[in-house]
Amino acid sequence: MEHELIIPNEGFPFKLFQFEGKDGNYVRGKHWHRSIEIFAVFEGRLTFYVNEEKRFLQRGEFILLNSNEVHSILSPEPNKTIVLQIPLKLFENYYIGGNQFLLFTHQKREQDAEIMKLLKEMYDGVCQKEIGYEWNVQSGFFKLLYLLINFYRRQEIPKDLVRNHKKLDKLSMITSYIRDNYTKELSLEMLAEVFGYSPSYLSRMFQKYAKTNYKTYLQSVRLEYA
Amino acid sequence: MEHELIIPNEGFPFKLFQFEGKDGNYVRGKHWHRSIEIFAVFEGRLTFYVNEEKRFLQRGEFILLNSNEVHSILSPEPNKTIVLQIPLKLFENYYIGGNQFLLFTHQKREQDAEIMKLLKEMYDGVCQKEIGYEWNVQSGFFKLLYLLINFYRRQEIPKDLVRNHKKLDKLSMITSYIRDNYTKELSLEMLAEVFGYSPSYLSRMFQKYAKTNYKTYLQSVRLEYA
Repeated sequence: MEHELIIPNEGFPFKLFQFEGKDGNYVRGKHWHRSIEIFAVFEGRLTFYVNEEKRFLQRGEFILLNSNEVHSILSPEPNKTIVLQIPLKLFENYYIGGNQFLLFTHQKREQDAEIMKLLKEMYDGVCQKEIGYEWNVQSGFFKLLYLLINFYRRQEIPKDLVRNHKKLDKLSMITSYIRDNYTKELSLEMLAEVFGYSPSYLSRMFQKYAKTNYKTYLQSVRLEYA
Repeated sequence: MEHELIIPNEGFPFKLFQFEGKDGNYVRGKHWHRSIEIFAVFEGRLTFYVNEEKRFLQRGEFILLNSNEVHSILSPEPNKTIVLQIPLKLFENYYIGGNQFLLFTHQKREQDAEIMKLLKEMYDGVCQKEIGYEWNVQSGFFKLLYLLINFYRRQEIPKDLVRNHKKLDKLSMITSYIRDNYTKELSLEMLAEVFGYSPSYLSRMFQKYAKTNYKTYLQSVRLEYA
């Protein structure tokens, strides 16, 4: 349930890497982050829960996770999966209606195969580091942004999703504090006081927006960092 | 014979535009600039003189002009030609042997058709300005850089060309001064004094590196700016 940090590699405005659950026997609990994330499965398969909905990912398929979309991952078997993390801010010219974000569809598009091909080329480029590879990788990345904005963007954002996005931004500050202090005693009451909320309000935020409860969240952080 | 200014358009790290001699009946005298320049002819034809060598450009062909390569252009008939100017500095990771530049070949390559296609797409993108076009244009540009460095770069630079490049950089400062002061009296002697050369040395620089003489150069500037 960690709020992942997005570190650009080698001056690229994105992060591209192999999924850490590639060896299988791996579960990643509910979490969310501002960055848009693509998981592209080239071998094996994965199971995602996105907004409480189960989604199977087969070889040759990808999933596009929106900014602050709560998701968890099951990776029981070995797989080859490439992850691309794109800072939301790159899309700021396309934020919708005064909101600080935009939404992409989860539905299949004609361009899916092209997206998979671009991700493969970008990843191979970064691994092989042939002459001028930075330019080739950048070329693929910009083409991908172009495809996303033209063929995957949702034209309308339901009001409750706008609210959800904002609340999860707030919760991210709190979960960040939790991760920095997970070795200490951290009751809901103490946390509420630090951030100036009532304990019951904070409890409801976890329940309503992160679809989990505070205790479960704290345990998962302690497990992950132990 | 102007030392052209490279102004990036719309935040792009290059300049892309239609050739100013597109209506025909146009001659551009000898000149040079630090930027690498590509002329791509989509309709009609052009004649170039590059380093004293005549080169015909037919529809579907492009010419790649190196940094500080002296060239002139004849455009007797209407044509559709796209010009791309790329700052030399973008290639700084590929400068050869402690020099501040690199060289590209003038010879045909298998990738010529792909270069033409990219230039067309970039130009159409900039003209049509569809959603996300900046990303598509950037994608094309980075792909083009990748092709140039991999398939058009010359691995060795003859020593006299290194010398030529440096001398033309120096001459560029002088021609820039001439363009700023062409309305005044500007004898070779006065100019030599301003820049701390002897008049005979300055005269030889024009002759040897720009392949022209001072008087002809001054006249061409006065004609162009009149």
